[in-house]
Amino acid sequence: MTEIPYKIYLSENDLPRYWYNVRADMKNKPAPLLNPKTHKPCTEDELSEIFCRELAKQELNETDRFIDIPTEVRDFYKMYRPAPLTRAYCLEKKLGTPAHIYYKFEGNNTSGSHKLNSAIAQAYYAKKQGLKGVTTETGAGQWGTAMAMACAYLDLDCIVYQVRCSYEQKPHRREVIRTYGAKAIPSPSMETEIGRKINAEFPGCTGSLGCAISEAVETATRQPGYRYVLGSVLSQVLLHQTIIGLEAKVAMDKYGIKPDIIIGCAGGGSNLGGLISPFMGEKLRGEADYEFIAVEPASCPSLTRGVFAYDYCDTGCVCPLQKMYTLGSSFMPSANHSGGLRYHGMSSILSQLYDDGLMKARSVEQTEVFAAAELFCRTEGTLPAPESSHAIKVAIDEALKCKETGEVKTILFGLTGTGYFDMKAYAAFNDGTMTDYVPTDEEIQKSVAKIPQI
Amino acid sequence: MTEIPYKIYLSENDLPRYWYNVRADMKNKPAPLLNPKTHKPCTEDELSEIFCRELAKQELNETDRFIDIPTEVRDFYKMYRPAPLTRAYCLEKKLGTPAHIYYKFEGNNTSGSHKLNSAIAQAYYAKKQGLKGVTTETGAGQWGTAMAMACAYLDLDCIVYQVRCSYEQKPHRREVIRTYGAKAIPSPSMETEIGRKINAEFPGCTGSLGCAISEAVETATRQPGYRYVLGSVLSQVLLHQTIIGLEAKVAMDKYGIKPDIIIGCAGGGSNLGGLISPFMGEKLRGEADYEFIAVEPASCPSLTRGVFAYDYCDTGCVCPLQKMYTLGSSFMPSANHSGGLRYHGMSSILSQLYDDGLMKARSVEQTEVFAAAELFCRTEGTLPAPESSHAIKVAIDEALKCKETGEVKTILFGLTGTGYFDMKAYAAFNDGTMTDYVPTDEEIQKSVAKIPQI
Repeated sequence: MTEIPYKIYLSENDLPRYWYNVRADMKNKPAPLLNPKTHKPCTEDELSEIFCRELAKQELNETDRFIDIPTEVRDFYKMYRPAPLTRAYCLEKKLGTPAHIYYKFEGNNTSGSHKLNSAIAQAYYAKKQGLKGVTTETGAGQWGTAMAMACAYLDLDCIVYQVRCSYEQKPHRREVIRTYGAKAIPSPSMETEIGRKINAEFPGCTGSLGCAISEAVETATRQPGYRYVLGSVLSQVLLHQTIIGLEAKVAMDKYGIKPDIIIGCAGGGSNLGGLISPFMGEKLRGEADYEFIAVEPASCPSLTRGVFAYDYCDTGCVCPLQKMYTLGSSFMPSANHSGGLRYHGMSSILSQLYDDGLMKARSVEQTEVFAAAELFCRTEGTLPAPESSHAIKVAIDEALKCKETGEVKTILFGLTGTGYFDMKAYAAFNDGTMTDYVPTDEEIQKSVAKIPQI
Repeated sequence: MTEIPYKIYLSENDLPRYWYNVRADMKNKPAPLLNPKTHKPCTEDELSEIFCRELAKQELNETDRFIDIPTEVRDFYKMYRPAPLTRAYCLEKKLGTPAHIYYKFEGNNTSGSHKLNSAIAQAYYAKKQGLKGVTTETGAGQWGTAMAMACAYLDLDCIVYQVRCSYEQKPHRREVIRTYGAKAIPSPSMETEIGRKINAEFPGCTGSLGCAISEAVETATRQPGYRYVLGSVLSQVLLHQTIIGLEAKVAMDKYGIKPDIIIGCAGGGSNLGGLISPFMGEKLRGEADYEFIAVEPASCPSLTRGVFAYDYCDTGCVCPLQKMYTLGSSFMPSANHSGGLRYHGMSSILSQLYDDGLMKARSVEQTEVFAAAELFCRTEGTLPAPESSHAIKVAIDEALKCKETGEVKTILFGLTGTGYFDMKAYAAFNDGTMTDYVPTDEEIQKSVAKIPQI
């Protein structure tokens, strides 16, 4: 057997030429998005008021299995892709496991995560439509950075509403956004109706993701030549992120590697969906079988403790309703450091697959996640993002099970990004002041009770 | 002609198996290091009290052209190498230049720079010698991070004296160091004689690199089983860094590319020396000709405004004396944000090559460097380190000259690292509050006058 290198590099010619639309192979399609006012399925025209026309089409497309990646987007991808698939030899040795561990690393770009894969696609369609710019929101700042990078490349205006507490307390990502020429506005701002209203009602309000989304949507729909873009949850985003799984499959196929278990962290689901889609397609078509594990924080357990229902995607209730696993849009996750996983709901595609028993889910606590992150960076070099470390934790758990049973399983997980802008969280872990938090059943029932009855 | 991809990836088999010792091909060898007490050339035994035995040997080795890279070091390199050579297509297009621009990117690892290339080598020889640990100093923190990563991998103790103002004001790199299990101590500390002395004399002292070096050397020489490691200036460090130039040459040779101009930023000279050495070797042997340009900050212009003389490598005057271009070890660079380039001297190898007219040097001011960095990140994606951006600035200048003359020159520059931990400096640039500073002739004469007469 050929020896497998530490990193399997692909050439530019191996870069996929299409995204894979897993909905085409799903027997039970995700339920349609509903208009928040009429509660009727959103039409392409309705969605096109918020999103670019082409992205609205992609959002509704359940039939085309493959969607071409435009040349301009592929050219941009070439600046940081193909991303290597890494064999975690050092981690395997450290664990003393017979398991083979692989990870697909998406952090080798300045946005620091996989978010850039969809940002460039969304910016491209906005540019192609002749728009002047896009608006979006960002919490910790990964998505805002990714959009700023994509818009700088295409000379497109980019307005980012950044949750005020994050804007003020984590100034570094804000500066990255500014350096790429985008406008970062602390939210709630005085530039939108909803922002002025919130500022008047709650003076000194430090903001929330829900509020920032509402401000971004308001600006996009009021300002001519602008549309709103979102970094997760939507089916169009999962579509763009399938570049992760497609590349991983090409790399594995080169060496005849077949994963037994595929693991990803799950917030809104963009990375996990992107990683597993091509493998899930094979499973759906009966060509192969894999075990899929979604890993979520115990502090925000939408799959493991939420309900499968129509719910609002944002706390402001201005976006379409989506059928998904949700804790209720009024659910307030505790101050968990994995900002990217603090979302009350889940991609409708992944929710459906989970409900159909095609995917498992597991929740893990923060301190054990950081312990896994520490072990990982000390052995494999790369300092992982707290979000990604959820997947690392479960990958290690599965590898240790193999150590017990002696099974030689092949584990693949998604290393979505780096933790360079998360050193405050690492400091809390290093100082021993980090705590865990698991919501009570009562807390969850309270927000679940507020989910609209549809 | 074959089309050149955005990134030229090498396989693990292309990873060089030896470092290249440019001194073997130099007609005028660098002058020997002198013992700071006797002013006589340092012997291997003397150097071995401070450095590992094998590294002392490498420091003095002027004859062996090739030095094997140990398998264990190559295995570590495989976690983040070979580093891609990138064709800056987007930057070329933006500039409208006929020049072909390439850069060798060394920032795709958690230390964020090329420093890791020497850190792992130095840690390896310490481990091989059966040592318990190493001590070092760090200012901004890139070298400290790199040593912490290397020591974590080899299970070696690592004590980093971090300049107190940097320890307190830039806590993020300190946390990276801690996360890798190394001990970060603010300097001046109460753990060394020199630290206690300085703290007693200057209560509330915020430290300096010179003081941190003295503390690290004192700890290494007093504590059994420890040696001191240094991240730049030394010939052993340049040797390890030749992996940069060797890989660049392999990548270019694959596509028959021959650079006309090779550009690197120069602080202590480790990155520049590593990048140019293999090409310089060809020039020294009369096999090819290249133009080499060292780029230094106008605020700390050792090559362009310093003198070629024996001087202390540290402000504490405990390290060996080196013949080099220097502004005097008492020279205090202004608060330039490129921490990695704030060094009063220069590698003895590069100093000799420069004195022999084999390399040019240019100094650039801070704000023009950041303007180049901004242009670069908006077109090429990667947010560069301020240090690396000095090379970007001159590469752009040279490309614009080609635009005027119509010449199709091939430019290669070293992109040593990322600027993710330098966002305060970018903020100053974004806010328009960044200033330039060029020392007066009087200031330079004052510190030059204090250089010992040897």
